[in-house]
Amino acid sequence: MEKNRLEAFSDGVLAIIITIMVLDLKVPQPTEHEPHADRFVALQSLLPVFLTYVLSFIYLGIYWNNHHHLIKAAHRVNAAMMWANLHLLFWLSLFPFVTGWMGENHFTSAPTALYGAVMFMAAIAYYILQSVIIAQRGCDSRLAAAIGRDLKGKLSPVLYAVAIAAAFFRPWISCSIYVFVALIWLVPDRRIERVVDESGRS
Amino acid sequence: MEKNRLEAFSDGVLAIIITIMVLDLKVPQPTEHEPHADRFVALQSLLPVFLTYVLSFIYLGIYWNNHHHLIKAAHRVNAAMMWANLHLLFWLSLFPFVTGWMGENHFTSAPTALYGAVMFMAAIAYYILQSVIIAQRGCDSRLAAAIGRDLKGKLSPVLYAVAIAAAFFRPWISCSIYVFVALIWLVPDRRIERVVDESGRS
Amino acid sequence: MEKNRLEAFSDGVLAIIITIMVLDLKVPQPTEHEPHADRFVALQSLLPVFLTYVLSFIYLGIYWNNHHHLIKAAHRVNAAMMWANLHLLFWLSLFPFVTGWMGENHFTSAPTALYGAVMFMAAIAYYILQSVIIAQRGCDSRLAAAIGRDLKGKLSPVLYAVAIAAAFFRPWISCSIYVFVALIWLVPDRRIERVVDESGRS
Amino acid sequence: MEKNRLEAFSDGVLAIIITIMVLDLKVPQPTEHEPHADRFVALQSLLPVFLTYVLSFIYLGIYWNNHHHLIKAAHRVNAAMMWANLHLLFWLSLFPFVTGWMGENHFTSAPTALYGAVMFMAAIAYYILQSVIIAQRGCDSRLAAAIGRDLKGKLSPVLYAVAIAAAFFRPWISCSIYVFVALIWLVPDRRIERVVDESGRS
Repeated sequence: MEKNRLEAFSDGVLAIIITIMVLDLKVPQPTEHEPHADRFVALQSLLPVFLTYVLSFIYLGIYWNNHHHLIKAAHRVNAAMMWANLHLLFWLSLFPFVTGWMGENHFTSAPTALYGAVMFMAAIAYYILQSVIIAQRGCDSRLAAAIGRDLKGKLSPVLYAVAIAAAFFRPWISCSIYVFVALIWLVPDRRIERVVDESGRS
Repeated sequence: MEKNRLEAFSDGVLAIIITIMVLDLKVPQPTEHEPHADRFVALQSLLPVFLTYVLSFIYLGIYWNNHHHLIKAAHRVNAAMMWANLHLLFWLSLFPFVTGWMGENHFTSAPTALYGAVMFMAAIAYYILQSVIIAQRGCDSRLAAAIGRDLKGKLSPVLYAVAIAAAFFRPWISCSIYVFVALIWLVPDRRIERVVDESGRS
Repeated sequence: MEKNRLEAFSDGVLAIIITIMVLDLKVPQPTEHEPHADRFVALQSLLPVFLTYVLSFIYLGIYWNNHHHLIKAAHRVNAAMMWANLHLLFWLSLFPFVTGWMGENHFTSAPTALYGAVMFMAAIAYYILQSVIIAQRGCDSRLAAAIGRDLKGKLSPVLYAVAIAAAFFRPWISCSIYVFVALIWLVPDRRIERVVDESGRS
Repeated sequence: MEKNRLEAFSDGVLAIIITIMVLDLKVPQPTEHEPHADRFVALQSLLPVFLTYVLSFIYLGIYWNNHHHLIKAAHRVNAAMMWANLHLLFWLSLFPFVTGWMGENHFTSAPTALYGAVMFMAAIAYYILQSVIIAQRGCDSRLAAAIGRDLKGKLSPVLYAVAIAAAFFRPWISCSIYVFVALIWLVPDRRIERVVDESGRS
């Protein structure tokens, strides 16, 4: 029951973030340069925003997915967990801003670097939340063992850091890294899932 | 319990999409051409946006309704189902954009075609989600049998495809098709409902 | 369990409507006429919008409150109830628009009349939802008996109709009626509450 | 079950308020003065808005956190509690507006005072909600005893009042007070938590 409300609030915030991003896809208005706002060509300038939206949508989907499994593994909610969770939601709440900035400026250096920086901070925040939950269950828990190696969780921030640096020279490298990290995360964290299932069974 | 969170998240996203669309109904502002923004005549230009809003509202209501019955029929949530669900939510999240574009441009060709294209993709996404849930329950399940013929589900994408093509010649034909498809879906999927009820009883 | 999702979705939509209205309270920007956007005087033009926001917030609070009691009285969710509920949510979703229009135009005739018209339609929609739920429980049910007289429910649409007409002559009369109706509804529907409590007890 | 819906609605509103605030972080657009909207320097003018966003995010997190514990301590929901809760949500719903006004005007007098005024009213509203819940449980309850001294709850409005006055002379003093109050509240209300735990145990 405790956990329900933490999940409900997180779901609410994630659902709103994911949907608010779509507001960056602004309906084209007639301009002097292009008086016909109702042609497909008017959508052309929206394409980078759209692609960034797709990328951010997938990232938020991944976070929702893994968040779901992570909270399920927690025993009960305490103050540390609540704040670690809010900290994660804070960085995720900046997604609409960095998505809009990167998309509207067609993947130039500064916006692409900032996108990576917010990604980086969100990854760190997720790691903290995970650590709080592991600490609660005890270091010798199966959850700790299962996550122990946690290659993806440790690799992602490193890749984001590389992407931030690369943004100042070749922003397309950064974008490729963002797409690559999304792909390696698309597979949900089966390790946690397995532990939870076993806990339930035993 | 598993399913609760998938439903809660989907409800959240659908509730926000449905409500964000209303932001396209912008409060009329005084302009040089029409300095009185507080007369009924100032609403005239909003009428197409309003009509499109009504149509999209009904479509999202239909999706919410059928989604509700579909998820109820699922045994438990797995990764495939989560992603199929997010995929559906992605296409639905584009409704506010295409609703605004079609409404603001008074049902001209390109926006009307794009509206149909997003409808088409959402229908495909719903079909995929349905297939994932049937696969989970086994092909010989009563759900599979009940949906088996699924005339409406198979007819809709075909009609959308016709509407997309028609948009380039006679956009009003496309709009009529959109209204027609909404009408045939307004009746909720009694077949699934029946199977679920029987499952519950047996 | 059935009812939970209807409630969750309605709560979501109502929560978003209530919060989206606040977006009409636009942060004052410096203009040629008034270059200092950071003085209290810059808020002056926002006062009518703020007052309308307060009024609409109270109305939505009343709807949420009574909706809560009404759904609790329902036995189970059927298709008619779902659509009656969506119909109610549709009219409530127009609140941010009419709130913004009435507030920004300082309670002139047309916006004040439209505000009343949306109120009127929402009241009718609530009445329909109530009738659907009563029909489900049977006419001889205690809920039907309790609501039977339903003075407030029958009086409100009449008062809204008067307010719509009055808006074209003396908009302040309409506004007074809106405030008056809000006041008579502020008391939650104890009759339904009592029946539900008795049902639970017996 | 009763309490669930009150919590769900409050969670929804809080989640939306917290996320809508991020819309004040507007993606920089190219201007005549600064044609390059994709440089870090374009973010400079957003810094005060960002800092205010962080502050308001923390405040809303604190409210959500304490609200969570407070509602848990309530026996059941009655009309007084519902309206006291809506009253609290009303003042919290003004956070995006005052956050935007204070942030965009770089902490000048009037916006900083108004920020404090909304804080003040929210604190009063929380106090009323708390009193309603204590009244329900009886004055001799352990909750009443635990909250009895309630130093933080009584100190906060006083500090806000000081901050409002200070805003007209030295706005930075007000801002320091806002940060200070946030810090003393960051620790969740362990007293209530303890009572609830004991109630559950006994």
